[in-house]
Amino acid sequence: MIDSRTLRIALLGAGNVGSQVARLLIENRTELAARAGADLELVGIAVRDVDAKRDVELPRELLTTDADSLIVGADIVIELMGGIEPARSYILKAVESGADVVTGNKALLAAHGSELLEATEQVGAEISYEASVAAAIPILRPLRDSLAGDNIRRVLAIVNGSTNFILDRMDQNGDSMADASQLARELGYLEADPTLDVEGWDAAQKATILARLAFHTSIDTERVYREGITGVTAEQIEAAKSAGYVIKLLAVAERLTAEDGTEGVSARVYPALVPREHPLASVHGGNNAVFVDAEAAGPLMFYGAGAGGLQTASAILGDVVSAARRHVAGGPGLVGSSHAALPLLSIDDVITKYQINLLVEDRPGVLAELAGIFESLGVSVQTVEQFVAEEEGLATLIVGTHSAREKALRATVEALREAKATARIVSVLRVEGAQ
Amino acid sequence: MIDSRTLRIALLGAGNVGSQVARLLIENRTELAARAGADLELVGIAVRDVDAKRDVELPRELLTTDADSLIVGADIVIELMGGIEPARSYILKAVESGADVVTGNKALLAAHGSELLEATEQVGAEISYEASVAAAIPILRPLRDSLAGDNIRRVLAIVNGSTNFILDRMDQNGDSMADASQLARELGYLEADPTLDVEGWDAAQKATILARLAFHTSIDTERVYREGITGVTAEQIEAAKSAGYVIKLLAVAERLTAEDGTEGVSARVYPALVPREHPLASVHGGNNAVFVDAEAAGPLMFYGAGAGGLQTASAILGDVVSAARRHVAGGPGLVGSSHAALPLLSIDDVITKYQINLLVEDRPGVLAELAGIFESLGVSVQTVEQFVAEEEGLATLIVGTHSAREKALRATVEALREAKATARIVSVLRVEGAQ
Repeated sequence: MIDSRTLRIALLGAGNVGSQVARLLIENRTELAARAGADLELVGIAVRDVDAKRDVELPRELLTTDADSLIVGADIVIELMGGIEPARSYILKAVESGADVVTGNKALLAAHGSELLEATEQVGAEISYEASVAAAIPILRPLRDSLAGDNIRRVLAIVNGSTNFILDRMDQNGDSMADASQLARELGYLEADPTLDVEGWDAAQKATILARLAFHTSIDTERVYREGITGVTAEQIEAAKSAGYVIKLLAVAERLTAEDGTEGVSARVYPALVPREHPLASVHGGNNAVFVDAEAAGPLMFYGAGAGGLQTASAILGDVVSAARRHVAGGPGLVGSSHAALPLLSIDDVITKYQINLLVEDRPGVLAELAGIFESLGVSVQTVEQFVAEEEGLATLIVGTHSAREKALRATVEALREAKATARIVSVLRVEGAQ
Repeated sequence: MIDSRTLRIALLGAGNVGSQVARLLIENRTELAARAGADLELVGIAVRDVDAKRDVELPRELLTTDADSLIVGADIVIELMGGIEPARSYILKAVESGADVVTGNKALLAAHGSELLEATEQVGAEISYEASVAAAIPILRPLRDSLAGDNIRRVLAIVNGSTNFILDRMDQNGDSMADASQLARELGYLEADPTLDVEGWDAAQKATILARLAFHTSIDTERVYREGITGVTAEQIEAAKSAGYVIKLLAVAERLTAEDGTEGVSARVYPALVPREHPLASVHGGNNAVFVDAEAAGPLMFYGAGAGGLQTASAILGDVVSAARRHVAGGPGLVGSSHAALPLLSIDDVITKYQINLLVEDRPGVLAELAGIFESLGVSVQTVEQFVAEEEGLATLIVGTHSAREKALRATVEALREAKATARIVSVLRVEGAQ
């Protein structure tokens, strides 16, 4: 299906990922042409400063500060500037002028995904964004295409490499949160301002994108329930380890029926206990993995590098070649649908298990008193472990619950906190991925 | 993009997978229509015997023995009969009449893939076959689309669930090959005639399909180098375990430069030693996994169920919805290209590591004598372990080599076999996935 056509590629941004994309488009031009069925000509690279120093040397004549002129006349526009504006306006301009768009901009997609997808669909173009979640790991196309005939029940994802690196160091090397974070900064895993990563904002954006594709539903990323990793302590990691768990920051998207019967989806981010034998438990360092549970397919996992300029460039180029093939074939683009329009349910409705670690008075009758609290709130206890605490007159109690609604679990923790027998709630963590 | 169009779906075959596909097409018709942008009407199911007993009850009026009439007028034909004929003729007929084809027929694709792809491309139709490798695991579309801009170096795949079940039982439970095989038969993992599985034919067919998509190259499945698992012993499994390895039947497809400089691909199937820390080592039971190493993306792994009627139906329906979307959008289909046309290189050219277990005379000078053999054939030794054997006067020697050409490694084993100091070569296994 090779023809003599040339497709004009415009690149916006030449940072870590952009410069690798430019290099690969130039170096592999012949091979990419054979795969795409058309020559892919990089016609220009829009940058803020033409003279800025870059890791990869780029042809000087391709660099321009005039993104607007570059976009007009391009067949495929690759947006790698990041941030909301001017990226959003440039993408809309590209789509209006009939170009296909490839982007890795998760913040923009999470905040304005519906607007961009609708604008794209209206003109019959296509917007692809495989690089926006889990870098090089093919996960968005598989969700959109390969699993298009299945019903996805749940997605559990490690999609933030920085926090996985930190938690993995704490788990594998016994580092404190401070030491692990310092190392992450030194190795370039953490930005100068780590808030987006450690507070779970980045993972929440990715949960939004995953939920859209998995459940054909557009959700508001601001309303994704979110807890970061800043409260995770070395003691919790140790306790998790001895109980057969590992703590992972998970982005969860799942189909859910609320207590009142409403069918909806839950999207949430929090550090959770994952059983050691679960495939997600062996995702180490800065790697990412997306675990998908589908009705027919059963459990699936997609694993690989979650960051890196070169790795992310792989996903961008996959989207570029796919867009080019569509251009050669003709016909309008495919846009992930949000026809299901399911409501985003509250964290209160989520069904999960709690692992509660508390200090209690070391005297007869305490266990019965606390067990009564669980019972009265309708939360069923699965495991109890009790041992003498270091503090005089106190015992440590570790209670694992059966699955229950978050609302009841939270009420239980509050009641435990108020109970006469309780000295202190040490830690409360949710369990994901257990039977 | 929902329109009022109805697409006519014809199903050929109502076995384990086919009956699940029919059930899901009927039960999920409304949801599938929303995703595909057109109603998907199952217009008929061609079977050999209309009255045969089936696991899933299917509407009697859809069943027919007249596949030919069913195919004419269908928009999408799903072929799940298996075998070469009449499946091949039916697919060609479907393509000629303008239908898109979805199939899971690995034997047919391995043997006649090029013919079918060319026929499909000529009329602008599309043939999809995600279900043919690793059942529900999305791997073929990711290779074709998501990794279209990357250069794949190597694919290491566990694609035969039956043999993985047997080897995993031997490894995890200490079963003998006979006991593990018997259990596999009882649980339905092995066919009455297990030759296709245990001799590696099934894996070789899948290696052929993977190599085509990974390297844009059509290869002859009959020429895929193949060793089955029948020679694997409980002793080998034990020895592997104590050396930090697990034995897996791998389908390997990789880019390779032959000794004479020829650029080509290698496709091969054999039981290999995989380091315990490699992601493939933790693929248990009947599961499948495909490990892909790409230049830009780095290492990726795709994991999930490798068999099952329902699981495989997920892949079939993903292809059906994707084909339907393309029908709605218009334009010709996308066909994986084989433009690279790389030669299939001989096993002699493969670069790998050997782990050689041999019994030698227990006397001074033996190690020097044998070391001389390795040296003279240009094979470098990485590890040597020697201990007293159970047999009087003999020692067990376990030699791990550095990477070398298969040809030199095989010559080394032959020379060792002839050496005066050697009593017996106990086992020779290749190592894959090590640094």
